[in-house]
Order: sequence, then structure tokens, then C-alpha cells
Amino acid sequence: MSGYLDRINEANDIKKIEPEAYDALASEIRSFIIESVSEHGGHLASNLGVVELTMALHLCMDFPNDKLIWDVGHQAYTHKLLTGRKEDFSGLRTFGGMSGFPKHKESPCDAFDTGHSSTSISAALGYARARDLKGEDRTVVAVIGDGSLTGGMAYEALNNVSHLKSNMIIVLNDNKMSISENVGGLSKHLTALRTRESYMDFKMDVEKKLKQIPHVGDSVARSVKKSKDSIRQLFVKGGFFEDFGIKYIGPIDGHDIKEMVRVLNALKRLNEPVVMHVVTQKGRGYVPAEQNPSAFHGVGSFDIATGESLASKSLTYTSVFSKTICRLGKAHPDVVTICAAMPDGTGLIAFKKHFPGRFFDVGIAEQHAVTFAAGLAAGGMHPFVAVYSSFLQRAYDQIIHDVCIQNLPVVFCVDRAGLVGADGETHQGIFDLSYLSMIPNMTVCAPKNKYELYDMLYFAYQYHGPIAIRYPRGSAYEGFKNMRPPIEYGKSELMFEGEKIALVAVGSMVQTAVQVREKLLDKGINATVVNARFVCPLDTECLDRLSRDHQWIVTMEENVLKGGFGEACGDYLLAKHEDVRLIHVGVPDVYVEHGGVDQLKKTLHMDADSIVERICSAMSDAND
Amino acid sequence: MSGYLDRINEANDIKKIEPEAYDALASEIRSFIIESVSEHGGHLASNLGVVELTMALHLCMDFPNDKLIWDVGHQAYTHKLLTGRKEDFSGLRTFGGMSGFPKHKESPCDAFDTGHSSTSISAALGYARARDLKGEDRTVVAVIGDGSLTGGMAYEALNNVSHLKSNMIIVLNDNKMSISENVGGLSKHLTALRTRESYMDFKMDVEKKLKQIPHVGDSVARSVKKSKDSIRQLFVKGGFFEDFGIKYIGPIDGHDIKEMVRVLNALKRLNEPVVMHVVTQKGRGYVPAEQNPSAFHGVGSFDIATGESLASKSLTYTSVFSKTICRLGKAHPDVVTICAAMPDGTGLIAFKKHFPGRFFDVGIAEQHAVTFAAGLAAGGMHPFVAVYSSFLQRAYDQIIHDVCIQNLPVVFCVDRAGLVGADGETHQGIFDLSYLSMIPNMTVCAPKNKYELYDMLYFAYQYHGPIAIRYPRGSAYEGFKNMRPPIEYGKSELMFEGEKIALVAVGSMVQTAVQVREKLLDKGINATVVNARFVCPLDTECLDRLSRDHQWIVTMEENVLKGGFGEACGDYLLAKHEDVRLIHVGVPDVYVEHGGVDQLKKTLHMDADSIVERICSAMSDAND
Repeated sequence: MSGYLDRINEANDIKKIEPEAYDALASEIRSFIIESVSEHGGHLASNLGVVELTMALHLCMDFPNDKLIWDVGHQAYTHKLLTGRKEDFSGLRTFGGMSGFPKHKESPCDAFDTGHSSTSISAALGYARARDLKGEDRTVVAVIGDGSLTGGMAYEALNNVSHLKSNMIIVLNDNKMSISENVGGLSKHLTALRTRESYMDFKMDVEKKLKQIPHVGDSVARSVKKSKDSIRQLFVKGGFFEDFGIKYIGPIDGHDIKEMVRVLNALKRLNEPVVMHVVTQKGRGYVPAEQNPSAFHGVGSFDIATGESLASKSLTYTSVFSKTICRLGKAHPDVVTICAAMPDGTGLIAFKKHFPGRFFDVGIAEQHAVTFAAGLAAGGMHPFVAVYSSFLQRAYDQIIHDVCIQNLPVVFCVDRAGLVGADGETHQGIFDLSYLSMIPNMTVCAPKNKYELYDMLYFAYQYHGPIAIRYPRGSAYEGFKNMRPPIEYGKSELMFEGEKIALVAVGSMVQTAVQVREKLLDKGINATVVNARFVCPLDTECLDRLSRDHQWIVTMEENVLKGGFGEACGDYLLAKHEDVRLIHVGVPDVYVEHGGVDQLKKTLHMDADSIVERICSAMSDAND
Repeated sequence: MSGYLDRINEANDIKKIEPEAYDALASEIRSFIIESVSEHGGHLASNLGVVELTMALHLCMDFPNDKLIWDVGHQAYTHKLLTGRKEDFSGLRTFGGMSGFPKHKESPCDAFDTGHSSTSISAALGYARARDLKGEDRTVVAVIGDGSLTGGMAYEALNNVSHLKSNMIIVLNDNKMSISENVGGLSKHLTALRTRESYMDFKMDVEKKLKQIPHVGDSVARSVKKSKDSIRQLFVKGGFFEDFGIKYIGPIDGHDIKEMVRVLNALKRLNEPVVMHVVTQKGRGYVPAEQNPSAFHGVGSFDIATGESLASKSLTYTSVFSKTICRLGKAHPDVVTICAAMPDGTGLIAFKKHFPGRFFDVGIAEQHAVTFAAGLAAGGMHPFVAVYSSFLQRAYDQIIHDVCIQNLPVVFCVDRAGLVGADGETHQGIFDLSYLSMIPNMTVCAPKNKYELYDMLYFAYQYHGPIAIRYPRGSAYEGFKNMRPPIEYGKSELMFEGEKIALVAVGSMVQTAVQVREKLLDKGINATVVNARFVCPLDTECLDRLSRDHQWIVTMEENVLKGGFGEACGDYLLAKHEDVRLIHVGVPDVYVEHGGVDQLKKTLHMDADSIVERICSAMSDAND
């Protein structure tokens, strides 16, 4: 390796690299990313796709004065490398280490924190308008994938961009994929743009062409006139974007650095918004990822030579859901399933294979997903919406307004609920118990193990009202196979009857509660363990019983304490004025950064040892 | 009056009216609506605009088998009249009476409940797909305004419609308005479609033209061939919609019943989705509303002869906000304001006039509004987002993900928070205290009167972090002018020091708390009254003090109890194991229908008398 990457120690250093070495630098960056991700896991295919695009942007922009906003942000590894964070890759996505997403607190070159889809144009427009109002001089660029363009807020933003006409560059990074393959009419439209010949084979006289196009900035016109080979910088009919009144240029080869630099430098001088359509290849430069970009979207550690995963393969809740929903689908022809661009992540891919006509991938479009489900339910079907907890936040109003007011039978299968680990702040599924429980007509439950997830899905089908089942990322707990009393609406499960202390745990925390019980037994305390099953409605009968027979009730949930299960229990007991003391275990009122889930639980005092310690200390305080 | 309307007693009765009488019936409907709304208040301009469109739809559809979904739904008065609900207009929007929006529980002809914007295409697609899966035969129609099209979820839906190709008709009701005038690139695009001559002046040979257009359904082709004068039914280039791969026809005169019937009957036979672009005039047939449709969007009772409002004109919180934000804007050049298609409703219209460059109306696009604000804040401005409580639900993820993770100084001015009255279930602002308080880094406060709203807005400017100020619809409380201690972060205000019972009230409920205090004084009880001011963070010092000196704490909030202020107080006190008893006053776990706010408060036991009764009964129980 010739060590070009070693010459880059801070932002703008790339400008010192000679143009002939760009390809070599790109190769080094790819090798570095592949090695780093193979070791720690992370987002691979998307990062390999934008190496040249990121280099071109860095060659044309001045950091941190200029503002570059990545949509979703999982593709910012090259950006991190080019802004002096090479050494930090050793701690990528690990506790206390570097985030896998842009973080302003990590570097002033990260203009805006991202993680969820379709926010970049809105944020960039905000930056651009602030610049204009303050009379500052800076280039503002949003990079948005074609997948993210299926999210409604991107359209809301484009509509506003067109109205405000602020100077900004929207780079449409078109790799024909979101996480999985794109769906929908827009995707077809982009294909049409991509495959037409208008851009690549323009052979007209430059100046004549320029005169035909209204409002081309003078500076661009000059720059185009100067170099006749810049003919491809001309704006061509951009269909969709032009309907919004936004200029469009493209498609451009997203792996041709010099061409992108030329176009970007011209666009920077335009005094209005413009869309630059760049075609990139997801996974480029690593054959297994090129061949299966979807599988190499987000990965654990893997063997570089073969692409084989090195992460331990355990049964996940997602795969339990995947199998169960297929069974339900087979038994009940009214079962339909919906996901938002996540057939793999949510496990619906199997259902899709078996029942293609009853499976709907709506694109990155959680709002539509939920109201579409409501429409299906109103029309007599029984929809199951599979979605990650943090992404369901996008459809909050639709849950309240379209599903629950009408009390429609929509089942929300809320995956990645609780701490998710390496993806960090933006992806933690720690709010759903609170934001769902407060909605009238909504039922919220969580399984303690894989068998209960199965049973709850069957229960949800029979329930026939809005219901959410939340389960965490990662391995499904397989313990307590024989503790499987039938699910009864709003009723918890008494697992171990003890005395003095009752541990009432939600979903994933049941396993922890059992560990706590064992540790307490060692100390001579025989604690009761209750599997809450339902967070809403509350099993008040159980709480009544527990508060009569126990001095302490410990609630445990992988959710923020505010508005959560513990608070609801506390409030109920306080109203009854029962003489029982409460301890709430849950996520405190802070954003939780990335790190291993076990490590995070320790830090948040949600692991068995911390809980035992807390219980013992509270008891001894009370006895003082 | 010739009494055509009297001949319509149930769905499909309109089909018995002879075509020559359509105009007379339309006139009768208009008169009826104007009279009814002038008496009770309601949505006027939008309803007057769609009289003929609704008649045409009813002439072509078979209710309730066919499904008609109104976007927002405030324009469904004619639909209600044509489905046998004429008599119910006497109770329009009043307690126990007919809703101002479509309600499935009111009539099977109301296919889907609406209230918020941009949901109709999603819901209709769900209905269409359910029909296809079940092998049913029915026409599905969504009617969406051009304003609602600025909402992102409408695009998400169009993208999915294009992919699924389900047979459905999307009527684009284009009145060049949302509630106020439309903004954005899409609006300009519609203007271009509207004003071009391609539709109206087509003079080509029908059959030749037909051959040029791919995929025109055979049945349509036949129907067009049959009547040469049907030439205007041809599909023309629809730009935006065609980019999505959805057929487009229009623009069509939305007041020409026969023409619309002809087109609708042809489109019904198409076996794919189609957009029918109809141009209507908001407020049509009532001169004051035609001249100022925005003012006649939602109105109270008014004098038909003059259009003058008969509702009492009191100072509202909205107008206090309106004046204060102008003052803030004058003092601080970094203050910018954002609304989502509501410059009038939110009171930002004055700011717009004074500081046009610092005011942003982004369209019906709450998601973008919030992330755009985050971008403005990241870029160094101080944005104030003015939005109704129930609409802010649309931007829940953006508040968590784009504003609060980065701890950006965005001020949320949450209007219509609490019970809103006549608009009912979909518009009640009763969730915000819960859904906002659980978000890390968020501060939530509520003023007791108009002076405190002023002070809190100034405080919010200086605070420099995410903060929400929530205030109700309607009259601003003007009492306690002289109780105006400076706002201190997280601190409540002790208004009356009493003993035994402490009333801790949030915002609008402070006035009620004072009434309760007075009523209790009559009973010889001198209750303490605390104005909470901050819901989050909780003033725990105050709670400590109150619990030491009082036996009862009564929390009062215009918000659902779940996850609200009272629950947070209860949880805190329980953790401290204070020997104090709590009573929570707030909205129970149900959707609250329409009705006068005072009436609703009584029903929910949130009025002073109910609270006094509850306190006295709890005290006497405790003494037993």
C-alpha cells in the first residue's frame, strides 16, 4: 500500500493528494473499511458505494465551514476517514468508541446527526436558509439515497426547497436500493432517468443548448463555455424534480471522481437549489457485497476471504416472528403483512415468499404503512405491521388517528424494542412502551421468551383490536419452555411465588428478573417473579395481590422510566394508597449511546448485579 | 324552494333526482349548509366548494358498498346530507350531536374516519387491496385537496399506489388552497397543469389520439369512441403523477356535474389507479366566503347577510402569542418562525407581515417543519415552531431524532393543547404533555394566563434548548395580572399557601384550581394552589415541600392521565415514600368526542364542581 490514507490527518488534507493518486486512495479507503467492518461489524455495502462520491465532495468543499449532511448517515465512514478519524475506527460502534453515524459532538465536520431516513434535505435547507439570513458564505450539500427518497418528509422538503430557492446541492445517491431493493413508482422513474441516453450522449453545440435552457446561472454558463468537454454539465429534463421546479443534472457516474468534481464545482456557483443525480454501486470493490448488497448492509464481523459471517448464529426473535407469521398466514387468509423497506430486517421475507399477494413493502414510508394497514383492516383484512421500535415513531400520529380512534384490528410487531447496541442513540427502541401505552384503545404486550412471542402473535390475531407486541433485537430467550400458560387478555403470569419482594418484569427483562431472583436466593431472600405480559392494560388485580403480600415491588423494563410500565404501576398503587415500596428499573431520562447491550445495561444499572445491589441497599436503608 | 333536498332521505336517493334539477339541488344544499354553519359554526368554504363534486360522486357510486374516503374530512357536509343525515345538522359539532368529520360509527357510508391531512390515499389503497384480495366488487375513491398533497404521507401513498396498481380513483380537489394559500413547488406545478390548454381545447381525432396513448383501458376506449363529445376524457400529460406511473386526467370543472359524472363513470371501468384533477372554488356560492375563503375555513356562528362573526371576540392565547413573537422578532434578529400551512390559525400571520424573510410556511408538512427548524437552529438561528398539539404528533420522530438528540434550541409553541371542543376526537390536544415529557433533553411548560405566556416565550428564547410551551384554544385567562414572579427554570409558582390540601395545576387548569380553592374555602378548607409552570423537569423541591405540609396533593392537567404530569408526580412521591395521598385530575384513557369545552370538562369530571366533590368524597373515605 502506498500510504495515501496515512497522509490524511484532518479535514481538507485530501486536497494535497495529487489527482493521479485518487484511485489508489479510493482503493486504500475500501480496504480499510472492509477490514474495519469485518472486525467490528457495521454498515458495509453503503460505505463501499460512496467512496469516490465522498472524495469528490471533500475535494470541492471546505470543512467545517461548508456543511455536508448525510441522509441516514450509515454511509459516512469515508467522510470520517477524510476528517481525521482513522484511528477511531478501532472503537467503531463499541462502547465509548466512535459512532457508526455522523455525530456533531465527534467532529465539527459532522454538520447534523442522522440515523433515520429522509431528513437530510430538511436539515440542509435549514442550514442554507440560516446562512442566507446571516449573510455567511458556505456551500450546503445534502446526500440522499434513492431509498430515502421514498420517505414522505423528503418530498415535503423538496416542495419547500423549490419554494425558498435557497442555494444548495442535493446529491441523489442512486444505487437502486434502500436497504433491500426499492419499490414503488418513484423507483421506476429513477430507472427511466438512469437508463436514458440524454445525458451521456449529448452531442449538441454547447452554447446553443445553453440558450435553450432558461435560468442557467451565468457562472455555470461561463464555466461550461470555457471547457467544451463539460458538455455533460448541462441540465436535462429531470421529470420529477423539474415538476417541483428544481434543476436536475445527471445521471453521473458516481465512481468517476474527476467528473463529479467538475460538476460539483460548477454547481457550487449556481445560486439556487439543484439535484445532482449520481449513480453508485452498493458494495463496490468487495465481491461478496457487490453480489448481495442487501446482506452486506449492516453486518457483524465476517471473514474477508469468504464473506462468511463470524458472528454467532443464534435464534432471534425476528426469526421466531418470521416463522410464526407464516403459520398464521397459512391458517388465516385474512392475514396480510406490511413493512417499510425492511423485508429482511423484520423477517417478513419468508411470508413474502409464501404469500406474495398478501405481503406489502411500501418503501421507507412508516406513515403510509400504518394508515394503509388501517385501510386494509377497515376493508376486512387483518394486517400485521412489522417495524422497528424507533422507526415506528415516524407513524405516531397515524397510530393514534387512523388505527386507534377507529379501534381497527392492526397488529404492530415492534422489533428492535429495547436497547439495540451498536447503532446507538437514534436506534434505541426505548420509547415505545410509553408512547404506545398512552393511546386509548391500544393494547401493549411483550413476550418473555420465544414461545410466548409465538403465543402472543396468535393471541393478537384473535384479539381483533389495535395491539402492539414488542420484542428486542438479538437472541430469543429459550428458557422456561414449560411455563406456558395460555395468554389471557390483560393478565400477567406469576412465575415464582416468593415473599417480601416481587419482581415484575416486562418482556426481555423477565430473564434478568429470574437472574435477580437466583442471586437473592443466595442471600436468603425468596423473591416473587411476575412476567407482566401486558403493559397496557395494567393487571391491577395482580398488583393488588402483590402489594398485599409484599413489602417491595420492583418493576423492570427496557424502556424509559418516564411514562413507562413502572410509572403506571406506581401511580396505580399510590392511588390505592397501598403500603408497599417501589423500585423502578428502566432507562433513565437520557439518550443512550452505542455499545454492547450487556455493557449498556450495566452502565444503566439494569443488569442483574446492579439490580440486586439496588434492592439490598434500599432494603437496608428502609430498615435503618 | 322546490324541495329536492327533502326528497333525499338516505344514500343513493340522489339518483332519483332528474338531471335538470341538479343545479337546483346544489343550490338547496348550499343554502342549507350556509344556514347551518352560520348558526352552529363549522367548516364553510371547503364544503361550499365540493357540493357538485360530492353530488357527482354520489351519482356514480353505490353506498355503502362503494368506499369514498375524504381527506381531512371537514368537507363532508354534502356527503352527510346525501346519506340521510339532514336532521342531524341541528346538532352539528355539539355535545352528543353529529360530528363535523366523517365517522364510521355515524354511518356505514363514512368509510374511514379522518380529521388530519393527507391520509386518504393510504386508506383508500388499503380498502382497494382488501377488495382485490377478497374478490369483492366495489369502487374505491379518495378525495384529496391540493393542500393535503403537500403532506409527505400522500406521496408515500402515491408511490405505493403506483407499485400496486390497484383499481382506485384519486380525485384531486384543487382549490388552490390548503387552509391558507398553498406554498411550494408542487403548487406551482398544479397551477401549470390547471392553466394549460391541453385538456380544454383538444381538437384531435379521438381514435387516433387513443392509439397514441399506451394502456388506455379498452372499456374507456369504447366509451370514448361511443360519444365523440367525450373527447375530454382522454388522458393528458400529467407531469408529476405520470412520473409516478399513475394515469392522470384533467383538469375538469369541479362545478360541472354532468361532465364529472361522465368522466367518473368511464374511470370506474379502468382497472388501474387514476388521478382525476378537478378544479373547484372554495367558498363558492357565498360571496363573503368566495372573497376570503381562508377566513371562512372554520368559523363560529355568523350573520349570513354580512358574513360578520357573531361569536364573542375575546383575546385568545393565539393572539397573545402572535403579538409576543413579533416583539421577540423585533428584539432578536435570530428569531425565525415556522408553521405548517397555518399562518392564520397559529397567529404567525403578523410575524410574516413584519419579517417576511424570517417566516416560513412549509405547507402541510409537520415532519419537514421540525427538521427544517433543527437545521435552522444548527445553522445559528433560533426557530419557533407554531403548531397545533394534535398535528405535532406527525413530527414525533423528528422531535426525538432531529431536535432533542442534538439538544438544539427549537421552541415549540403548541397551540390548541388540551380540549379543543367542536372538532372532536381527531383534534383534541390531550397527548402532548405525555409524549413530549418522555423525551430526553426536552423541557415542557404551560402558562396559567396571558402574561405568563408572554413571559414563557421570552424565557424560551433565553433558554437555548428544546422547549415546548403549550396553551389551549380559545380565550386567554386574564386573571392574576399581578402574580407574575419571573420564570425560573423548572420551578413552579406558589400562588396560595394553605394547608392540608395542595392543588398543583398545569396551565389552563390553574384557573380551575383557583375556583376549586374558592369552593373549598366555603367549606372551611384553605387549600394551597401551585401553578406547576414546568411539567418537565418536575419541580421536585416543591413536591417535597408540599408532601411534608399536606395530606393531599391534587394534580390537575388538560392531558391524558397516562404518562402525564400527575403520574410523574405520583411516581416521584411514591419513590420518596412520602405519606401523602394523591388525586389525579385529567383526561381518562378514552378518545374525547366533540362538544363545548365546558361541557366536556364536566363529563370528564375536570370542572371545579366535580373536583371539589371528588376531593371531599376522598377525604371522607379516608376518614372512615
